[in-house]
Amino acid sequence: MNQRRRNVLPLNKVKVDDFFWNKYTRLVTDQIIPYQWEALNDCVEDAEPSHCIKNFEIAAGLREGEFEGAVFQDTDLAKWLEAVAYSLAYEPDAELEKRADAMIDLIGKAQQPDGYLDTYFIIKEPDKKFCNLREGHELYTAGHFMEAAVAYYQVTGKEKFLHIMQRVADLICEVFHQEAFQQAVPGHEEVEIGLIRLYQVTGERRYLEMAKDFVDRRGTEPNYLIHESEKESWIDIFKDVNPFFPQYSQCHKPVRMQDTAEGHAVRAVYLYCAMADLAYEYQDEGLLHACEKLYDNIIKKRMYLTGGIGSSGAYERFTTDYDLPNDTNYAESCASIGLALFCRRMLAITGEEKYAETMECALMNTVTAGIALDGKSFFYVNPLEVWPDNCMDHTSMAHVKPVRQKWFGCACCPPNIARTLASLGEYVYATQENDLWVNLFVGGEAEASFGGIPVKAEVETRFPFEGKVKLALTAEKEAKGTIRLRIPSYASEISLSCDGKTVTAEAGSYAKIPFEGTKKEITLSFVMPPHFVYANPKVRADAGKVAVKRGPLVYCMEQADNGENLSNLFVDTTVEPVVTYESGLLGGTDVIRLSGKRMDAEAWSSDALYAEKRVPLKETELTLVPYCYWGNRKTGEMQTWMKFLQ
Amino acid sequence: MNQRRRNVLPLNKVKVDDFFWNKYTRLVTDQIIPYQWEALNDCVEDAEPSHCIKNFEIAAGLREGEFEGAVFQDTDLAKWLEAVAYSLAYEPDAELEKRADAMIDLIGKAQQPDGYLDTYFIIKEPDKKFCNLREGHELYTAGHFMEAAVAYYQVTGKEKFLHIMQRVADLICEVFHQEAFQQAVPGHEEVEIGLIRLYQVTGERRYLEMAKDFVDRRGTEPNYLIHESEKESWIDIFKDVNPFFPQYSQCHKPVRMQDTAEGHAVRAVYLYCAMADLAYEYQDEGLLHACEKLYDNIIKKRMYLTGGIGSSGAYERFTTDYDLPNDTNYAESCASIGLALFCRRMLAITGEEKYAETMECALMNTVTAGIALDGKSFFYVNPLEVWPDNCMDHTSMAHVKPVRQKWFGCACCPPNIARTLASLGEYVYATQENDLWVNLFVGGEAEASFGGIPVKAEVETRFPFEGKVKLALTAEKEAKGTIRLRIPSYASEISLSCDGKTVTAEAGSYAKIPFEGTKKEITLSFVMPPHFVYANPKVRADAGKVAVKRGPLVYCMEQADNGENLSNLFVDTTVEPVVTYESGLLGGTDVIRLSGKRMDAEAWSSDALYAEKRVPLKETELTLVPYCYWGNRKTGEMQTWMKFLQ
Repeated sequence: MNQRRRNVLPLNKVKVDDFFWNKYTRLVTDQIIPYQWEALNDCVEDAEPSHCIKNFEIAAGLREGEFEGAVFQDTDLAKWLEAVAYSLAYEPDAELEKRADAMIDLIGKAQQPDGYLDTYFIIKEPDKKFCNLREGHELYTAGHFMEAAVAYYQVTGKEKFLHIMQRVADLICEVFHQEAFQQAVPGHEEVEIGLIRLYQVTGERRYLEMAKDFVDRRGTEPNYLIHESEKESWIDIFKDVNPFFPQYSQCHKPVRMQDTAEGHAVRAVYLYCAMADLAYEYQDEGLLHACEKLYDNIIKKRMYLTGGIGSSGAYERFTTDYDLPNDTNYAESCASIGLALFCRRMLAITGEEKYAETMECALMNTVTAGIALDGKSFFYVNPLEVWPDNCMDHTSMAHVKPVRQKWFGCACCPPNIARTLASLGEYVYATQENDLWVNLFVGGEAEASFGGIPVKAEVETRFPFEGKVKLALTAEKEAKGTIRLRIPSYASEISLSCDGKTVTAEAGSYAKIPFEGTKKEITLSFVMPPHFVYANPKVRADAGKVAVKRGPLVYCMEQADNGENLSNLFVDTTVEPVVTYESGLLGGTDVIRLSGKRMDAEAWSSDALYAEKRVPLKETELTLVPYCYWGNRKTGEMQTWMKFLQ
Repeated sequence: MNQRRRNVLPLNKVKVDDFFWNKYTRLVTDQIIPYQWEALNDCVEDAEPSHCIKNFEIAAGLREGEFEGAVFQDTDLAKWLEAVAYSLAYEPDAELEKRADAMIDLIGKAQQPDGYLDTYFIIKEPDKKFCNLREGHELYTAGHFMEAAVAYYQVTGKEKFLHIMQRVADLICEVFHQEAFQQAVPGHEEVEIGLIRLYQVTGERRYLEMAKDFVDRRGTEPNYLIHESEKESWIDIFKDVNPFFPQYSQCHKPVRMQDTAEGHAVRAVYLYCAMADLAYEYQDEGLLHACEKLYDNIIKKRMYLTGGIGSSGAYERFTTDYDLPNDTNYAESCASIGLALFCRRMLAITGEEKYAETMECALMNTVTAGIALDGKSFFYVNPLEVWPDNCMDHTSMAHVKPVRQKWFGCACCPPNIARTLASLGEYVYATQENDLWVNLFVGGEAEASFGGIPVKAEVETRFPFEGKVKLALTAEKEAKGTIRLRIPSYASEISLSCDGKTVTAEAGSYAKIPFEGTKKEITLSFVMPPHFVYANPKVRADAGKVAVKRGPLVYCMEQADNGENLSNLFVDTTVEPVVTYESGLLGGTDVIRLSGKRMDAEAWSSDALYAEKRVPLKETELTLVPYCYWGNRKTGEMQTWMKFLQ
């Protein structure tokens, strides 16, 4: 393998100021972090209370009461702190930092003398720590706190949180090498990522080794998770509502033998993140190969056009190849976040453009769809087709919500989206020796260095609504390096120039632009007309259907523009889609118009459910908006895959 | 209202010997009853054990052990006994009758001194009788035993079983008029039907009144089922895996105010059966009107083309108008049986042909699909589209089985199908004074009477594969009456004659043919070409799709005839369907061939999941078999609603 990874540029070196992303990133500080703070403190009206901070106060002995919330409720605070850390990186806020410090103090007080930290077990089941790794989520929770602590340390330089989490990590390293836990692995992966990040900042190799042990143990005999419930110490947390099966936690076979993405989608991609990290850290070709196979399986057989993953509502899981139902699926926001994280790692190791493209797809469609344009409500589940009438409680469709929810009992998605938006810069840039990698077209500034000399990069673009990117580089003094600028596979008529001179650029790769001197101006322009997309004929749900993309964005029909019963519409694919930018719509967006036909429902004159005479079609125009913006107007139907006239 | 009901002809007066139905009815005695006997005794290999008879032996003190099986496990025996009763009616079998008598003795021994009879509570929760009416199923179980006892008495004349069940009914009448149970109703309707049938043979009016009370109480305040779990005596049986909601048990409003079919589909139609019975018994126009409204809602908005009902896998329930997904639905066999029972009652009261048509649709499509052609395996769930690969355990599709199951843990459907097939004669004929009603075209003989004079009716037909019915009537001596022969709405070019003379006949009604003398020969012939059917455009799942029917039969494509990936096929509706009878296929059946096109999957040359180029279509022929026969060959895909070329 013998590779050097492309490392992320620290967030305080990146400033996002972007035509597309400002809509979201500005929400993080203006809306989401304050709103989530209210939520953590149970102050949001009409939203399910989180009880998260109260749990910490109880665990710390500062308040009387019972634990409330999900077994993984603590992670609400972890993800909030991680988002706060990132937001402080590019917008210092003394007040917010003080509030975060206070939370860190509280966490420290809740921590047990042996380093243990999980308020569910501290308050509710003190004798049952680590007795249900399948569903106890202690290690998952620890992982999120580790990620938050690392982020907070990197941004603020403060070590307290890091030390708290090192004590947790030390305890984990101790417990999970004891005889009884020799084969133990977390039911929900995440601590592996946390331990690796902790290793990366502390240099404590035992954290990396613990992560490697967890990954190596998974799916090997004796299979800890399968047999855990036979132990005397077992505690049933979810009351066996959902019986356990090995694929659910990716423990059906050793990770290096896994070549299909299985089970709970979030768990799966978090595992793959850790696998990719370890493949790099140990220069382990076999593990990298497993990652490539799993990526391939997702991309070629199990991913929605929107970068969503998880076809089954029950168990929020991968199912089988080409099974991609559009209206009953799960496609959790967190799963797409995990997919982006996995791709970022694979991109860092391999430099292959395809990973950037998948990462971009997940971020710009599903993750952004996960949050309302006002930052106040969130999707957990991201269907590609919605008919609000049948999204009823107490039915098979109960998991699908046609309207974003304020805050959830199981609140993983909102804070996860927040931390992702707040750390967007980490997805945009990467550095490898004297190479600066530009992975996403996001306006703003970044500070890299070539041979120790600071180099400022300024990006201007109206992407994804225009295929033009201006990148201005200024070095403090004479410097030498390389810009690796992504040329997406959806680009055509590509024109790349540096200081007016043409540079070779090929779609689906990274262009290599040498930098010498103190200043360079790079201009990339390409065409990305809206176009029709078809699914592999093996995808039964999409046979006879067409979707529309422009660049990375998937478009969809909404009832607001097309009237009700979107299923009655047919696209005429012989007419080219027409794109118009509408500044007044959804905060400014491209709108795509198609020609097509509509079933003339009026012609169905009777009240019969079935009849021999079919209704005629009449000419109509179809209006599409980016999928990420759906559900921001009046509640109504939405459809991404549309029937077309054969 | 002032109407006299059309009563069923006793089963020992009817002999079914029919071209279509013999395939099934002969299974009842040859296969199902002996097979189910083995199942009841846990002797079927590879099938989940029933434990049903063991439970009775334990309750009777004849054996040690624990209760096993579902809370309603007793009903396996009830439904078996009911099927046995019907089968004895037209094929006496001393050995079988002895076996049934022994079971009745056993039931008598298991009965408690106060009349109580339910082995789950006798063995497992003796102090919790009637403490969970929502899910306890005691009254449901009692209802099925009452139905069986009435059937057994009617056929054999033996009173023992009837007396056992009268003691149960007496206990129910006593308990459910006590103060604490003044508002109580069963969570799963059925006892209402049983009590009414018990009243009909015993003349004990208190049984009828109890049934009326149960129906009248439902959905009124204080709402017993809603508040039951707040009682101290409450016992949680299903561990709240599925939280209760009022629609589930049709207690969301008083029954006379209900105008949409709601909740668990089997529960719903069993309630509607009782409502129809009571509407007649009390000549209650309001109640009849409610039945008509509910029927209308089902037929016009909530029923599958196959007579299936219950759109949601979760809770096996009705959802909302026009919500009829084809691959994720429940459409339980028992629900279609209940729908047929409801329609039979409505037909008996009103004489309206539409009820016969719905009854026929449910029986000839979904109920028959529920059982394999060898009588050894059964469908619970009846989807209209199946892709076996994605019918996976631990997913949202787990309830859908692409292959019939041998015997189920919750074994309501197999014995329910058996009793329905065994009592087929009750659906075929009815009498009202000197009218003989012929509702279904089923070969065989029946014995009616006109003015006390026995009249034999002999029917010859190859329906539904031919639209020709010969009905020969012979009276023992001069008699006077009327034949009411159904002319289905799907009939065209109708020709009806009696002894060579033309009689008026209109599609969608009953023809009236006077009988005078001792002999008449009636010949009905009509055309029912295979034809395309379209769904109301509001049915989103079927937009752009077409189905094929011939007469009452719905047809479907199977992988066995059409190769894999049925979603890639498109019907050319400009070409007329062609029908051929194939005697060697599926025990002899019509096969329908269509012209169409198939997506040329080979043309999708890459392994990409999505691409810009769509695959071309190529000419193909599509082969359809009756829906009721699907899944009787190699496991494969099935599709009822097919895409068509616009």
